[in-house]
Order: sequence, then C-alpha cells, then structure tokens
Amino acid sequence: MANSKYEYVKKFETDDKLPPFNWIVVRIDGCHFHQFSAEHSFEKPNDENALNLMNSCALSMLEQFPDFVFAYGVSDEYSFILKETSIFYQRRASKILSLSVSYFTSVYVMKWKEFFPHKELKGPPFFDGRVVCYPKAKIIRDYLSWRQVDCHINNQYNTCFWMLVKSGKTEREAQELLKGTVAKDKNELLFQQFGVNYNKLPAMFRKGSCVYRDKVEETVKTDEGGNPIRRTRTKVVIGHLDIIGPNFWSEHPYILNED
Amino acid sequence: MANSKYEYVKKFETDDKLPPFNWIVVRIDGCHFHQFSAEHSFEKPNDENALNLMNSCALSMLEQFPDFVFAYGVSDEYSFILKETSIFYQRRASKILSLSVSYFTSVYVMKWKEFFPHKELKGPPFFDGRVVCYPKAKIIRDYLSWRQVDCHINNQYNTCFWMLVKSGKTEREAQELLKGTVAKDKNELLFQQFGVNYNKLPAMFRKGSCVYRDKVEETVKTDEGGNPIRRTRTKVVIGHLDIIGPNFWSEHPYILNED
Amino acid sequence: MANSKYEYVKKFETDDKLPPFNWIVVRIDGCHFHQFSAEHSFEKPNDENALNLMNSCALSMLEQFPDFVFAYGVSDEYSFILKETSIFYQRRASKILSLSVSYFTSVYVMKWKEFFPHKELKGPPFFDGRVVCYPKAKIIRDYLSWRQVDCHINNQYNTCFWMLVKSGKTEREAQELLKGTVAKDKNELLFQQFGVNYNKLPAMFRKGSCVYRDKVEETVKTDEGGNPIRRTRTKVVIGHLDIIGPNFWSEHPYILNED
Amino acid sequence: MANSKYEYVKKFETDDKLPPFNWIVVRIDGCHFHQFSAEHSFEKPNDENALNLMNSCALSMLEQFPDFVFAYGVSDEYSFILKETSIFYQRRASKILSLSVSYFTSVYVMKWKEFFPHKELKGPPFFDGRVVCYPKAKIIRDYLSWRQVDCHINNQYNTCFWMLVKSGKTEREAQELLKGTVAKDKNELLFQQFGVNYNKLPAMFRKGSCVYRDKVEETVKTDEGGNPIRRTRTKVVIGHLDIIGPNFWSEHPYILNED
Repeated sequence: MANSKYEYVKKFETDDKLPPFNWIVVRIDGCHFHQFSAEHSFEKPNDENALNLMNSCALSMLEQFPDFVFAYGVSDEYSFILKETSIFYQRRASKILSLSVSYFTSVYVMKWKEFFPHKELKGPPFFDGRVVCYPKAKIIRDYLSWRQVDCHINNQYNTCFWMLVKSGKTEREAQELLKGTVAKDKNELLFQQFGVNYNKLPAMFRKGSCVYRDKVEETVKTDEGGNPIRRTRTKVVIGHLDIIGPNFWSEHPYILNED
Repeated sequence: MANSKYEYVKKFETDDKLPPFNWIVVRIDGCHFHQFSAEHSFEKPNDENALNLMNSCALSMLEQFPDFVFAYGVSDEYSFILKETSIFYQRRASKILSLSVSYFTSVYVMKWKEFFPHKELKGPPFFDGRVVCYPKAKIIRDYLSWRQVDCHINNQYNTCFWMLVKSGKTEREAQELLKGTVAKDKNELLFQQFGVNYNKLPAMFRKGSCVYRDKVEETVKTDEGGNPIRRTRTKVVIGHLDIIGPNFWSEHPYILNED
Repeated sequence: MANSKYEYVKKFETDDKLPPFNWIVVRIDGCHFHQFSAEHSFEKPNDENALNLMNSCALSMLEQFPDFVFAYGVSDEYSFILKETSIFYQRRASKILSLSVSYFTSVYVMKWKEFFPHKELKGPPFFDGRVVCYPKAKIIRDYLSWRQVDCHINNQYNTCFWMLVKSGKTEREAQELLKGTVAKDKNELLFQQFGVNYNKLPAMFRKGSCVYRDKVEETVKTDEGGNPIRRTRTKVVIGHLDIIGPNFWSEHPYILNED
Repeated sequence: MANSKYEYVKKFETDDKLPPFNWIVVRIDGCHFHQFSAEHSFEKPNDENALNLMNSCALSMLEQFPDFVFAYGVSDEYSFILKETSIFYQRRASKILSLSVSYFTSVYVMKWKEFFPHKELKGPPFFDGRVVCYPKAKIIRDYLSWRQVDCHINNQYNTCFWMLVKSGKTEREAQELLKGTVAKDKNELLFQQFGVNYNKLPAMFRKGSCVYRDKVEETVKTDEGGNPIRRTRTKVVIGHLDIIGPNFWSEHPYILNED
C-alpha cells in the first residue's frame, strides 16, 4: 500500500512462471525424518500410523486444491501432480511450492494427535520440496513409475534389514548379509528365514499410496420403505495400487488425459 | 536407491542455486489470512496474541537455523535474511524456500495453543513464500525500510479505520472518511475524536518486530554469598525498533557487515 | 588453465541447460533493419536479393549444424528448430543462442557480395535472437503457423501500402486508406486499382521460406553409353510452401516426428 | 501484427531480465578457433594481425554501444562490461548476449580484409558467448584479474612451447619439457635457450588488451598564426596495461565507480 522510495527493491523479485503445457510435479520430502522418526519411535521398516498420517495430509491437499489431479506417496515423501493446462496460482513456481509444502505441514501437525493419540510431538516436523515440469503425460507416468520402483526396492530391502536386526543381527551384519542380493534373493530370505511371503505384506508398504478422485457409490439416505438410496459422486480416495502397468491408467483415463 | 529405466526423469530437475555474494531474503506471507483471522476472531486492527505467535515462530527459526541473521515481521508476514556468504543448503532456492516456510508453519500450529489457549484451530493455517536476492547490504537495509514503512502506513490507516468502525461507522463510511488523508490528518483524527496519541500505541503495532541475535547479560547462578553471578551470552531476541534510521545498525554492526 | 585466487568468479556462471524432451526454437531477428534496409536501398515491400541472402544463410546453418531440422524465414527474421531429443551443445541455452546468431551473421556478411555485387556494406548488419522451448511437436507446428500467418498478413499489407505509395500517395495517406481493411478488401484494392492478382505474386513473398532436408534425385555422372546415372541423396533445400495445413508435414514426416 | 489463434505460442517465451544493481559481463569466445587459426595460418603463439582485428572489433563495440564501459581481450576471447545501473535493452539477457556476439562477428568479418589484405576467409568465423552477473565492482575487478592471470600463464606457456617447436622439438617433446615448470623456470628457459627476455615481449601478448574511454588531447585545427589548437575529448582507446594492481583503476575511477 505504501509508496515509498524503497519500493525499488521489488524489482529484484523474479518472474518464476512455469512454462505452459507442462505437467507440474510438486514433490515434498520429510526434512531430517530419519531423526524425527527415531525421536517418535516410528515402527521399522514401516509405521502404519505415520503412513496413514501422510496419506491423510495428501487427501486433504486434493480436497483443498482441486488443481491437483493425483498424488503418490511413499515413506516420508509425497508427489503431487498438476495438469499441464492448470493455471494454479498462474503457475508461479514459488507460490505453488511454498503453499503446497506449508499446507501439507500444517495438516500434518494438526492431525498428529488423530494418528498418534499417545505421542506428543517433540519438535516441529517439517518438509522441503521442489517443483519439476514434465512436457508429456507419458513422462509423468514414467515419473510415477520411478517413484513406485523406488518404493518397491527400498521396502524390500528395509523389510529384510529390519527382520534381520529384530532377529538379533547388528545393523552392520544385516547390511553385509544384504549386500549384492537381488529381489529374488530377498524374497527367498524372507520366506526361508522368517516365513514371510513378501507379496502378502500390506499393499501400502509394497506399493505406496495413490490419492486421486474417483466415482464412488454411496448410500445417501433410505426411502420411505427403508430401502437405501444410493448415489454416485466424485470423491478423493486413497489406494495402494500398481501404477507402473497400464491398468490403473486405462481405468482412470481422466487423470492424465491431455487436453 | 533404485536404478531403473525411469531414472531419466530426474534430468528434468533444474539447478536453482542462488548467485553467490548476494544477500537472500525469504519472505513468508499468510495465505488467505483475511479469512483465517476472521474465523479465529482476531482483534482488529492488531491481535496481540497472533503477532506474538508469529514472533515466536520467527524466534524459533533463528534458533533452529543459525544462517538466518535477522528477521522482520509485520501482520501475517515475516522476512528472513541470510548473509551474502551463507551456504545454507548450498543456496538452493527451492530447498531454502520450502523448508523455511514449512518449519515456520509447523511451529505456528504447534504453538497455537500456547498463544490461544481457548481457541481451537478451525482449519490449517498456511503460508506462501518467495526468495529474493539482493546484491548489497545497503539494499537489504532499503528492503527492510520498505517493509517498515509499509507497516507504519498500514497500521496508521487500520487504527483509524477500526476506531471509526468501532465507534459506529460502517466500513464504507470509515473508508470514505479516510480517503485522501495524510499521516498528520490521521494522527489528528485519532487524537481529536478518540483521544488517542498514535505514538503511545504499542511499538509492536507501529514498528513491527525485529528478531536477531544480541549480547544479553543474564544471572546464571548465585555465588556462595548469595550474590548473583552474571554472564554475557548471545541470544535470539525480539525488539520493536526503528530500522530505517542508522542507529540500530550502528549498534549491531555484525548483523549486516559485509565480509 | 590458470588456477588463481580469482577463479571463484566462475561460480557466478549459471547452468542454463534447456529442459529435456522439449523442441527448441532459435529465432533470429535483424537489429535496426528498418534503418539498415533504407541505407542499403532495399526494394519495398520485398527485396528479392535480401531475402535470398537470408535464405542462403539459413541453408548454410542447416548444412553446418545437422541438429537443426527445419528453418522458417520471413523478412529479416529466421526461426531454427532443434528436435526435442537433440543434445546440441548439451542444450545449453547461451551456447546455442550465441553461436547460432553469430554463425548466421558471419555468413550474412561473407555472402553479401554474392547477392549485392554492386553494393558496399555501409555498416555492420547484426541480429538479436532468443531461444524458446516447446513441449510438443503440435505446438511447434502452431509456432510455425504463427510465423506464416504473420508473414501473410504483413506482406499483404505491405504490398498494398507500397503500391499506393509508388502510385503517388503519401505514406500517411496510404496508411489511412488501409485502416480497417480486411484481407478481401486488400486483394480487391490490388486487383481493381493496380491490376495485381495477389495470389500470383512470388510465393517467397507470400509464404516466406522453409529450409529443410529432402531426398533429391541428382544426375551424378553418365555411364559408358552416355546415359545419365541418377542417385537419390539427402540435401538441404529451400521451399516456399504452406506449412499451416497438414500436407507438407505428412509428406515430410521425419522432420517433426516424436521419438 | 497478426492476431491469430496461434499467438498463444508467445507465452512460452520467458522473461530473462538480469537482476538490477549487478554488473554484467558479456564474454565472447571464438568457436573452433583452433581450427580457424590453423586454416588461416595464424602466427604462433600470437598473431598480431588477428589480435589487432579482435581489438578493432571491441573498439567498435564500445563506440557503437555506450553502455559498455570496459572490455578486456586475450587470444580469441573478449569480455565486455556493463555498469550495474545500465538498462541496456532493459537488461534482457538474450537480447544483450545475441546482439553483442552478432555485432562483434559482423565487424570481424567486415574488417577481415583490413587486417589480412592477402588472406581470403575460408569459412565463416563465429563466436559463442555468455552473460554473467556480478554483484559488486570489487568482484568485477577480480573477474578481470582472473582473465589477465589466465592471459599471462597461457602466453608464457605458449611462448615456450612454440619456441621449442620452432627450434625442432616435436609438439609432444615440447609438452614433456614444460610439464611441471613454474613461471620462473619458463622465463629461464626462454632466456637461456633462446636469448629471449620474456618481459620485453610485446605488452599486447603478455597483458592482453583493454578497451575503454579516456580523455585524449587532440590537435583539432590550427589558428590563424599556424599554431595548433588542441582540445580534450573523450575517446575509446586500446591499451595493454596491468589491470590486476590498483593503479589503472585509481587513474580511471569513472570506469567502475558504483553509483
């Protein structure tokens, strides 16, 4: 509002609009979450409550900001996708990045009690983030595949690692035992040594979490005769699905369709 | 960790290092705080608790991240300053922006209860932010002066506006009455009509808040004779001071000295 | 080579790699060519020699730098296109921009005598340029259509304008007469007043110039019986063709095919 | 001029204004000049005509564009400096870069005959370039020192190298002989083996070339009595001077003074 001789400092602000017709990914990552998860005694390798809290924040993001069409989360990381034609905050990179990470953080702290009713926050959880542009839907699918492959490989490793540690190995011994093993070796190890069928582990651990809009049939009320009246509506949902193969995308073509 | 055929998507990430030997300002702004302050019945024109909460977050920022050498806040906005030689997160713009705004947000939600013990958060408060480079300390001083002039002009206007409204005028009437008035007119109006001496209003409202490190003398313990033993230590403090004139800066030369 | 205490100044150089999988356009524009063309008495509205010189430079560009797959020129402007997968100079924007405009300029001056044997250069012709990324082949086609529509509209206007001026009108009168006219009016004016069928004017004036690689059949030598031996080879050619419609592109699918 | 449905492609152009209050360096570099100088039989290690041609182009740059306040050249490279407050082409990076390199190239080709009257250009000489911002005059001085140290070290090495080669060594032998030598060794080698006092070699080879504006006293005409009338005027001059030490700068304070 003020019009002072100091106004010239505004000229140092740069225009950071993201290029049009590019898909935009906002990836949020826990800062020092290794330490944070230790301080709050998260279960290893996966803390179900912590993951559900992350998912709940992502769901809130999609409900709050309709421009986000899809989100994928694994561990303390979440990727949010804006359509190529989105004009969310005029595609200004700093705006999009900062308010996304801030909103996510705010919900994380607010909902903490809901997911950890018996744990006090010992320090402020916080996240960093980045914004990346992708010129084609096909590359967005590759981006998401990259994250899901990462989820798979990390989870398989971590599952073995913590099984070994919990069975009495030191962390170093566990590391040594896993060095050079491939997927099949790890599945074998889990089954032989711990009777664990990797593929029976919760899908959320193995596949991460997808958040998107879907048509859902709901009972909205009952008619006079007491029969349920069901209606279809669009709702943000959470799923733990394969997004590398084509099935999910052909069943939800509206998510990544190019305009 | 995974080394898949999808890794190529990382190549779309850009290097966003800020140029060396530039001062860096991270300015954080409340998103939709007009609505947020209404929902939470903030006092008008200034809610002392809300301002103290903001200040407390800023203080926590400087305690957590020693690279920040100064912060200035007014209303729902805070500017944080990194020294020109800082290598905070290798000067990567997205990192600095996102984790700053996230940390600030996290503390804001965590400390809410402390400042508003009788108010529940009705929705997630969140902030956006931007990062701006300034090539010289002199321009950083102009930047801070710009913000403090803004604080002064807005606060004077808002003080008059809300006095008029509280005295029975409609918001439109108040707006009309203030149209075209200059600083002197507004001071006159406050004094004549409401018996208020503007310059006696709390400095926090009129000058905003500065957060910085200062040498503070503290009583650390008492000696055997019961006499206090005082020691000087560096501590993050909050002040409501003029930062447009030279005094503050000559008394705290270490804050903006160029290396 | 030198390793001095001044080396740190290199850190101010920024990484300006263009994002992968984007088509790249380098557009070169004559600087102060209004004045340059007056000084060198270029024919109005189109100087055939000047256009042929521009085309010859563009042809030399495609011969010199195989990464350029297409060029389109009109007036004192030329657009050069790099494929989305090109790694020409590692996609560094400054490199690509500067050497393209420099090479073009160099050839322009070197070939001047060839196209203007009786005119001395009175001052250095020079160009500026810019680099723009486009995420899809479809948008590159729209880009080229944009330039060709521009060519059409400008040429039609200029043809009328200079006909009027050459027939005795002042420049202001010509301007006034053309104000508000549409394409049909202008064609009518040319035909009625000057007996000119616009569509019979040289294609180079109406459509601009395309430079690209094409399969060309050439007589390479004669056999013992004196019969010509013809061979097909790929060659950079110049054409004055419609590139808004689909025909050119379906006949030359290799130019803009996505990998 | 045309207002078509294709206009949207302009939105992909980015704002590339350089930040205010930064000194701007445009550095131009010969592209493939190793090959170019071989093709045109440039003298080794320094071709006086080639250097004078470069200097003449730089001088023309400063005459044409008053915003450039200083230029420093060595070998096939030239750096041009814009003042921190310059608004040359609104500080748009692409504009500044492209027209600078284009103008330089144009003059290079136009003046070739003047410096090489007996050599035809065998192919188009061309340059690339980059634009770099520096926040302080002190760093500009360090930048220039960096280039002059480079000039010194390269020239000393090349002088030895070519003396050895001309005396019958192979290029590999010369390289081997110079491996690990320091400045003093090289001076010794030149003196002992070739009777050359390095410091007596032309300053242009040892120090590179500076182009800047200076006050020059000139005889403008003679009075009635035949006495010369002298007048002082500002003129672009070329010098081969030390710019690492303070002397040059204290004698020409107007070049890098901060506003």
